Amino acid sequence: MLRKLHYFHLNGLAESSRYMLHYAGLEFQDIRYDMATWPIKKIKDFYEEGDRRLNQSIAIARYIASQTNLLPSDPWEQAVLDAAVLNINDYRSKVREYYFNWILETDPVRKEQLGNGKDEFESETNEFYLSRFEKELKANKGYFGGKLSWADFYLVGCIETANLFAGYEIEEMYPNIRALVKTIRSLPGVKEYIATRKPYI
Amino acid sequence: MLRKLHYFHLNGLAESSRYMLHYAGLEFQDIRYDMATWPIKKIKDFYEEGDRRLNQSIAIARYIASQTNLLPSDPWEQAVLDAAVLNINDYRSKVREYYFNWILETDPVRKEQLGNGKDEFESETNEFYLSRFEKELKANKGYFGGKLSWADFYLVGCIETANLFAGYEIEEMYPNIRALVKTIRSLPGVKEYIATRKPYI
Repeated sequence: MLRKLHYFHLNGLAESSRYMLHYAGLEFQDIRYDMATWPIKKIKDFYEEGDRRLNQSIAIARYIASQTNLLPSDPWEQAVLDAAVLNINDYRSKVREYYFNWILETDPVRKEQLGNGKDEFESETNEFYLSRFEKELKANKGYFGGKLSWADFYLVGCIETANLFAGYEIEEMYPNIRALVKTIRSLPGVKEYIATRKPYI
Repeated sequence: MLRKLHYFHLNGLAESSRYMLHYAGLEFQDIRYDMATWPIKKIKDFYEEGDRRLNQSIAIARYIASQTNLLPSDPWEQAVLDAAVLNINDYRSKVREYYFNWILETDPVRKEQLGNGKDEFESETNEFYLSRFEKELKANKGYFGGKLSWADFYLVGCIETANLFAGYEIEEMYPNIRALVKTIRSLPGVKEYIATRKPYI
């Protein structure tokens, strides 16, 4: 069965799925585009398996997890991870919105205002969300669900993308998040993939 | 086991879960708040089961579906519904953002601009998303997954909320969506609930 993951050459929405596929040893084509060659307007990423196609990064990540040992079978345990992923996604949206507004702003006055608000935005948004994730990880042996799952991969993908935007390691002050990033980056499959991938800019 | 669903007295994020609980005949406390009494800042709705608690409306709705016959067991079928729900949620966010911006705008000039853009916003956003949902329903016997599932409930909850904001039936031009709204509103349990609930304003 031929698996294909289509996304920009960026970590963004796809990196957690790429990590899981490499970790699980599931063979796939890692197809990458730039803005000019992206084939489907208004869809951000998609996944193919044979002649079946799926969009929405969270649906894709969850499906890949279901093909590995990264999704528990108990419905309540699954729901706790779903909620964690959706909370992480809320954070991701806010980070993305802020940076895109700032990057795309052409009026120099408004751009300076947004730039001056950067520290405040980062400290408020990061503090609210990251302290919440830190607390959840701490209460569950360093993972959202008490053991490694797709929610942990989803957080790490989001943190790495936020770091690319922010230009520094936003998880610096959160020891459990830092440890999780390190754990996932050291997993068999993921480690080798990171060593060979081209840098994201 | 005691189930409690906490939300504002509004359809919004919770109505699809309320409908599913009524349809499945799962007893629950339907706890409602107004803005002044809402207990948890920055969380929009939550669900309790005994001493366990869950946030995020999509995680809640999916969990409730898992306790009924509204979630299929096949992982790919589940993923297709996850993607449908996340697409519906993208639409919901855009509708909500537009109306909130318009309602909360205090500058009369900007408010008029937003108001004048209303038809355009509605036709563009509605057309893009609703025609996509209509197409998916049509291709799958009137349901997102070929038979009644939680994604269908999620769409109807979203349409009803959008109608409350828009002041007319936005699904008017989409026969499969209209039929689905009618089907769900006529289901045993849901029908009786609708007949007795207080109106939303």
